[in-house]
Amino acid sequence: MKRVAVFTSGGDAPGMNACIRAVVRGAVYHGIEVFGIRRGYNGMINGDIFQMSSHSVSNIVQRGGTILKSARSKEFMTPEGRKKAYDQLQKFGIEGLIAIGGNGTFTGATLFYDEYGIPTVGAPGTIDNDLYGTDYTIGFDTAVNTALEAVDKIRDTADSHDRIFFIEVMGRDSGYIAIQSGIAGGAELVMVPEVLTPLSEVVETLKAGWSRQKSSSIIVVAEGEEEGNAAEIAEKIRKQVDPDIDMRVTTLGHIQRGGIPTAYDRILASRLGLGALEGLMAGEKNVMAGVVNNELVYTPFKDTIRLPKPINEDLLRMVKILSV
Amino acid sequence: MKRVAVFTSGGDAPGMNACIRAVVRGAVYHGIEVFGIRRGYNGMINGDIFQMSSHSVSNIVQRGGTILKSARSKEFMTPEGRKKAYDQLQKFGIEGLIAIGGNGTFTGATLFYDEYGIPTVGAPGTIDNDLYGTDYTIGFDTAVNTALEAVDKIRDTADSHDRIFFIEVMGRDSGYIAIQSGIAGGAELVMVPEVLTPLSEVVETLKAGWSRQKSSSIIVVAEGEEEGNAAEIAEKIRKQVDPDIDMRVTTLGHIQRGGIPTAYDRILASRLGLGALEGLMAGEKNVMAGVVNNELVYTPFKDTIRLPKPINEDLLRMVKILSV
Amino acid sequence: MKRVAVFTSGGDAPGMNACIRAVVRGAVYHGIEVFGIRRGYNGMINGDIFQMSSHSVSNIVQRGGTILKSARSKEFMTPEGRKKAYDQLQKFGIEGLIAIGGNGTFTGATLFYDEYGIPTVGAPGTIDNDLYGTDYTIGFDTAVNTALEAVDKIRDTADSHDRIFFIEVMGRDSGYIAIQSGIAGGAELVMVPEVLTPLSEVVETLKAGWSRQKSSSIIVVAEGEEEGNAAEIAEKIRKQVDPDIDMRVTTLGHIQRGGIPTAYDRILASRLGLGALEGLMAGEKNVMAGVVNNELVYTPFKDTIRLPKPINEDLLRMVKILSV
Amino acid sequence: MKRVAVFTSGGDAPGMNACIRAVVRGAVYHGIEVFGIRRGYNGMINGDIFQMSSHSVSNIVQRGGTILKSARSKEFMTPEGRKKAYDQLQKFGIEGLIAIGGNGTFTGATLFYDEYGIPTVGAPGTIDNDLYGTDYTIGFDTAVNTALEAVDKIRDTADSHDRIFFIEVMGRDSGYIAIQSGIAGGAELVMVPEVLTPLSEVVETLKAGWSRQKSSSIIVVAEGEEEGNAAEIAEKIRKQVDPDIDMRVTTLGHIQRGGIPTAYDRILASRLGLGALEGLMAGEKNVMAGVVNNELVYTPFKDTIRLPKPINEDLLRMVKILSV
Repeated sequence: MKRVAVFTSGGDAPGMNACIRAVVRGAVYHGIEVFGIRRGYNGMINGDIFQMSSHSVSNIVQRGGTILKSARSKEFMTPEGRKKAYDQLQKFGIEGLIAIGGNGTFTGATLFYDEYGIPTVGAPGTIDNDLYGTDYTIGFDTAVNTALEAVDKIRDTADSHDRIFFIEVMGRDSGYIAIQSGIAGGAELVMVPEVLTPLSEVVETLKAGWSRQKSSSIIVVAEGEEEGNAAEIAEKIRKQVDPDIDMRVTTLGHIQRGGIPTAYDRILASRLGLGALEGLMAGEKNVMAGVVNNELVYTPFKDTIRLPKPINEDLLRMVKILSV
Repeated sequence: MKRVAVFTSGGDAPGMNACIRAVVRGAVYHGIEVFGIRRGYNGMINGDIFQMSSHSVSNIVQRGGTILKSARSKEFMTPEGRKKAYDQLQKFGIEGLIAIGGNGTFTGATLFYDEYGIPTVGAPGTIDNDLYGTDYTIGFDTAVNTALEAVDKIRDTADSHDRIFFIEVMGRDSGYIAIQSGIAGGAELVMVPEVLTPLSEVVETLKAGWSRQKSSSIIVVAEGEEEGNAAEIAEKIRKQVDPDIDMRVTTLGHIQRGGIPTAYDRILASRLGLGALEGLMAGEKNVMAGVVNNELVYTPFKDTIRLPKPINEDLLRMVKILSV
Repeated sequence: MKRVAVFTSGGDAPGMNACIRAVVRGAVYHGIEVFGIRRGYNGMINGDIFQMSSHSVSNIVQRGGTILKSARSKEFMTPEGRKKAYDQLQKFGIEGLIAIGGNGTFTGATLFYDEYGIPTVGAPGTIDNDLYGTDYTIGFDTAVNTALEAVDKIRDTADSHDRIFFIEVMGRDSGYIAIQSGIAGGAELVMVPEVLTPLSEVVETLKAGWSRQKSSSIIVVAEGEEEGNAAEIAEKIRKQVDPDIDMRVTTLGHIQRGGIPTAYDRILASRLGLGALEGLMAGEKNVMAGVVNNELVYTPFKDTIRLPKPINEDLLRMVKILSV
Repeated sequence: MKRVAVFTSGGDAPGMNACIRAVVRGAVYHGIEVFGIRRGYNGMINGDIFQMSSHSVSNIVQRGGTILKSARSKEFMTPEGRKKAYDQLQKFGIEGLIAIGGNGTFTGATLFYDEYGIPTVGAPGTIDNDLYGTDYTIGFDTAVNTALEAVDKIRDTADSHDRIFFIEVMGRDSGYIAIQSGIAGGAELVMVPEVLTPLSEVVETLKAGWSRQKSSSIIVVAEGEEEGNAAEIAEKIRKQVDPDIDMRVTTLGHIQRGGIPTAYDRILASRLGLGALEGLMAGEKNVMAGVVNNELVYTPFKDTIRLPKPINEDLLRMVKILSV
């Protein structure tokens, strides 16, 4: 393989730039040519493709977002779109792809390989940590720390006013951000999609806290929680407890997607970028590079897409114990 | 004056602890006794009052929230409530008060003095910077930096996805947090209650940006904005521009009230705490300590309550120039 | 086991408080009594021991340092000191110990068990990550992120002035902080005690950078580096390269020991505190609780003390590739 | 004036990029052409000059360092150097200059005007806050907050180990960073060049603290302190107090020059950049734009260079009171 291209796709995540840098520098090190594609599959279709050098990725390791920009592409979901993308890659002589993104991205890459034989190796770039095949995804550690900083700040106000706060964090169908920011932030309860939390348990937790003179309580709610979003849950609880209770809701929102990546995310992103590149060079295709138990592994896209990623039950148990 | 008490009231603000510390350490330095009252006027009514020493305020200068806790008191708004409060103060022999809070707090203090002759000197503790008589209030600088950090993070995503973001910040009827975090964050537009921003101007700004290939735009909206909250404004704009436009809304919420105070807030809070105490000792009453043009000044509560605090027009002009 | 005590010993590390909290809350949850000992073995000798409740550890999960304070004890290294410590523990009826610290702490605990039969389970509390038996120690992730923030800041100046910076980080005989902050900070070179870096390689790296128009370079040096400390190395290099070269040295120092713990450190500390307690309750002794490949494991003190912890060679290879 | 140029000179400071952005965007807004000069006077001499547009300064408001790079120029101190610089400016048709820097920069600009009639308006860019003619310089607020964060971290360790720490901060001959980070960090003592602190006072402060069971002490030392640097002072104190005392020294160093600028610095930098440009357009020359009492003012270079900037005595008094 003499010429590869890298792109980012789906929601952006802190550490994507560190991953791009590792792909580019790795290619320079191994003496192969590397191109960047802007705006994911859209740029592939439109030929928004340019050669990159070591210098192209200087001073980006610490930046949030992605210098290659990202997008979700409807056109690539059509055969016509993929045909255009293939023609563009041919024009540039690109033989293999590194895709930094999530399951949507990998689904597209699989189709593309089946039709045109262009191999892709993926790197898991999403704050949600919802991908099978890696212990953590690029951006997750930063997102957890951002959520945690917010929990710490809100704790100041909750304590000062003897208030109950419901804090909604991101994660789509995954409770990972909620469980980790909840434990680290000393939350009294964490509500995640993976485990049913009856509202009666929420009420009991609050009442138990009051009986121990706990003046404030923080409940972290994952956005995919079945009982509804944080505002809806708070409303239901209010009705069951006391209509005059001092209860507030905060939805952290998009701040969780951005920011300077943590050390963990930069190192993980660097390993995975380099691992994806070297996998591609060694003939891997339709696989995602991941780090499991501190080892680099490649998992077929079909498994990352299909297999569930169970949440650590130990962590859920810990929330309960630590909030006594 | 031999014995004074300090309390925090209204919404909490970063730096309140530094202010409490300055009052207590100042009292120790000047050889007078100092008491803390918990939960504002409620604690005064309930006698939740305790003696403080230099050691009581060790290691709190860097903490958000307030160790004295805060509350809004309905009971103190009644003559009966104030009678109880007076009786409690008599019991403890307290001759003067330092109130860290905002206009609601100062209104109560004025009534209290008229009825019982207990003098209060205030210190402006609120993130909103909406008090006449001081250039900045305690907590404002921290809140602006918290909002700014959020703007910086959202800029990462906005740039990566070529998106428009509406970010709603706090400030009640004041646009100070919005204007400062907007300029510092490089926002394309800032909407504040003090100045009418027609929606047509928002539309023009967005279109002008597109014509210059600006791929992303950030519009900071103060919570007191007349056109509605950020979500409502975004909806109106969407209708006028393009129903398919990629536009997101984030409401920063309570994270702006907490957090480790900045250097500026800790120093301001220390000056104002000490200034309020020394004013009280020198016979001041019904005034708020403030810093105007770097000088300590005392402004009558009736003026801090009544007089408007105009926003700096230069700053609004700057937003426009800097986003060309 | 009905009554246990917890203490911190050796250098403090961010996350120690989260670990103490987990021990205390875990004990409350399991219905056993828990005591705190202040200033490590010194407090054990002096009887500075007090009962703890769930409330004792409220609002400390986010704090750096250790509420139990820490110290190195010469007296405990003597038979007389250990006798006094045993008598104190007898007085309080304490049957088992949780020691949060490093190898010095565990060596003392082993002696103590041999002489008096009081079992200790350890939790690895040190920023240096130099303990066999756990992938990471409590405080390491925070220290790396603190070092990284410093590297990021210095990069601003290095780039603005086309300068070379040598940055010395902590770690005693371990290069873990150096290697991780170096990779994450985009350092051109990392010098660690585990691997010999000839000065000629440093010179070559700098010259290779110049030939590629790299205007600035950052070299991260572990404090245990054989070639000397950062200042000495910089002087040697200067002589070999150019006496007029713009080269600066910064020794990060004690800021790396403090600070708000990261999410990772708080969760790890919580798992290990709870794991140490539950191990002790289950009859473990003279072992350290650790997390290896995301599983809780117990490693005999004699192994944590004796066995080396090799640095990940993959990471060293990455530094070289990523700085091309 | 139809064509101006902007450059940064001397030590870099956070906010310089926000200042450059304001100059460039202001020029675009006012319809005049604007050029950037790289590496200060060196770039002027070498013709490292390029046209800038609104887009040139996108996404830099939040970055530390300076995109124009900075340097100290020996050649510009010679008549030949200035002749070359003038010829280059002539070649590009540049009629006026905006210099972001300190007194060295302004001295050069004054000479240059006397010889060649090219007017310069300055903006005070230095973390040291040592310039007469402005309340604060660009970068000072960020540097204070960086120093403060370090003091907060070191406090964790000082408290945990009952230790005395001497922390040396930057500021050249100015004690501003020391006094502000010292007050905000709750230091027991601050030593600044502007005021003599006899070592006997340091000893007394430490002893007074011990007599009140203060277990730890932090002493902030400005780098220009007469008694020597922090390490030397600590050594002298150790001899006078107790050779076995647990006393540590940390020199914060270059981390204080970099980092993401605070809101205050970005706004100040924006005002001063725009103010410098509009001053130049209005015919000002040989003056520095500053903000005094929240008003934009222009001060002749000869005054900024010659006049001393006294430290606020109130703040020094506060250190003493707040550490009782």
